[in-house]
Amino acid sequence: MHPIMTIEDIHAFLESHFPQVHADGRVLSVTDIRPGGLTMRFEPGERHLRPGDTVSGPSMVMLADVAAYAAILAHIGPVALAVTTSLNINFLRKPKLAPIFCDCRILKLGKRLAVIDAILTQENVDSPVAQAVATYSIPPK
Amino acid sequence: MHPIMTIEDIHAFLESHFPQVHADGRVLSVTDIRPGGLTMRFEPGERHLRPGDTVSGPSMVMLADVAAYAAILAHIGPVALAVTTSLNINFLRKPKLAPIFCDCRILKLGKRLAVIDAILTQENVDSPVAQAVATYSIPPK
Amino acid sequence: MHPIMTIEDIHAFLESHFPQVHADGRVLSVTDIRPGGLTMRFEPGERHLRPGDTVSGPSMVMLADVAAYAAILAHIGPVALAVTTSLNINFLRKPKLAPIFCDCRILKLGKRLAVIDAILTQENVDSPVAQAVATYSIPPK
Amino acid sequence: MHPIMTIEDIHAFLESHFPQVHADGRVLSVTDIRPGGLTMRFEPGERHLRPGDTVSGPSMVMLADVAAYAAILAHIGPVALAVTTSLNINFLRKPKLAPIFCDCRILKLGKRLAVIDAILTQENVDSPVAQAVATYSIPPK
Repeated sequence: MHPIMTIEDIHAFLESHFPQVHADGRVLSVTDIRPGGLTMRFEPGERHLRPGDTVSGPSMVMLADVAAYAAILAHIGPVALAVTTSLNINFLRKPKLAPIFCDCRILKLGKRLAVIDAILTQENVDSPVAQAVATYSIPPK
Repeated sequence: MHPIMTIEDIHAFLESHFPQVHADGRVLSVTDIRPGGLTMRFEPGERHLRPGDTVSGPSMVMLADVAAYAAILAHIGPVALAVTTSLNINFLRKPKLAPIFCDCRILKLGKRLAVIDAILTQENVDSPVAQAVATYSIPPK
Repeated sequence: MHPIMTIEDIHAFLESHFPQVHADGRVLSVTDIRPGGLTMRFEPGERHLRPGDTVSGPSMVMLADVAAYAAILAHIGPVALAVTTSLNINFLRKPKLAPIFCDCRILKLGKRLAVIDAILTQENVDSPVAQAVATYSIPPK
Repeated sequence: MHPIMTIEDIHAFLESHFPQVHADGRVLSVTDIRPGGLTMRFEPGERHLRPGDTVSGPSMVMLADVAAYAAILAHIGPVALAVTTSLNINFLRKPKLAPIFCDCRILKLGKRLAVIDAILTQENVDSPVAQAVATYSIPPK
């Protein structure tokens, strides 16, 4: 399972397809693409916060969803558009007001269905702030 | 299981605790509170959209999360602050660019844990756009 | 969405396709089939128990999975064989050593994917013992 | 996070608390305990099968649940009894009629809640047959 898109390719794609995500400035950026995986960095802005200087749950869902989507894209190319069919997330620790990194691992990349595991961490890699699994339907060519 | 807060109570609470949600105008409003349940209406704004004039997945997660949270609040009062511990969502149909209603049912409201089922619909109540289950940890008094 | 198989049809199908389930006697039986839904009754046997005279979690998963599968079958017929792709279950209350009823509602029955909501109850219908959502991949004809 | 029980301790505990699991002979055994993790081996018996010589979904749920439970136990000791509150499983590939290994990683071990990630593999470690996340409520001491 080898990636066929570069970080720059993914950024250009997100820029044109998810303009809303970057409405307040670029908050998401891919930091690594590797066989079967991808890492995305999220810089929380004002509107992603919750009282107590923490990051909102739906913002972490957004991060996991876009990162998992990018991981699939990186491995199948920008032609076929995957659709999120389900997402399960466990909120493990209250994130600090700081960047969150999302490490994605492709568990399955079938013809019709892809399943991605995502671990969200801040400073301490051994104490993730959240874990998510997302499934995507891949349309027939 | 009887509600102890009114729609106005919930609105006032959300206004003061979730100001980010309403940054672009009030997009969420409670339309019904009933024993064991609550309905919330979501009016998607520009930043909740995705290409193809549809509503983004994370926006539906936000709706389900806030609505489920409000359902708990309505039944235990604003004192104890529940924390979302997990959320599972199935995206069933592409929503149109129109309001989404989220019907919550409290499956369990224990001393430590609450579990809420949420069905998101638009016009056709028999064809939901999404279904979610969220769990909340209720802190000791 | 109208059922095209009868209770007897479903029983005959399960008998021939899931013989292991009934290894110790028939523990599962369909009690109702309706448009978009199905109810299955589970009579726990010795091997489904856990200490404290309760029913094991995996037994409830088995019930939800077979019931959801039967609900799909009842509406599309025995030709195409659906495969479970994911299952999310919340254990809400400790079940007693007594029959459990599983009420299934088809949330989506697409060409490729079906999503079923299942509520497991005992005596008190308002206090379910578990809630599950299962997704199935439907093979191309 | 260091384990405080040995493989033999865990086996003795399962033997006395989950006798049903081993009704047809010992099918589960711990093969490794490490800081923050545990591996369990499952030898499928006749009653865990499905047509086509594959292993049933609920049997994989049983494996993930018992393995995750054992992982918690190994780290907190046999005193407090954890209760499964939710389980999410993705079935990725049809398992062969052969042993399945379940690698558990403790994502969180809090005072009240534990969250465990489980990856089920057979021969090819890079192509898991299933992935699960289970949450447990830990009773107050």
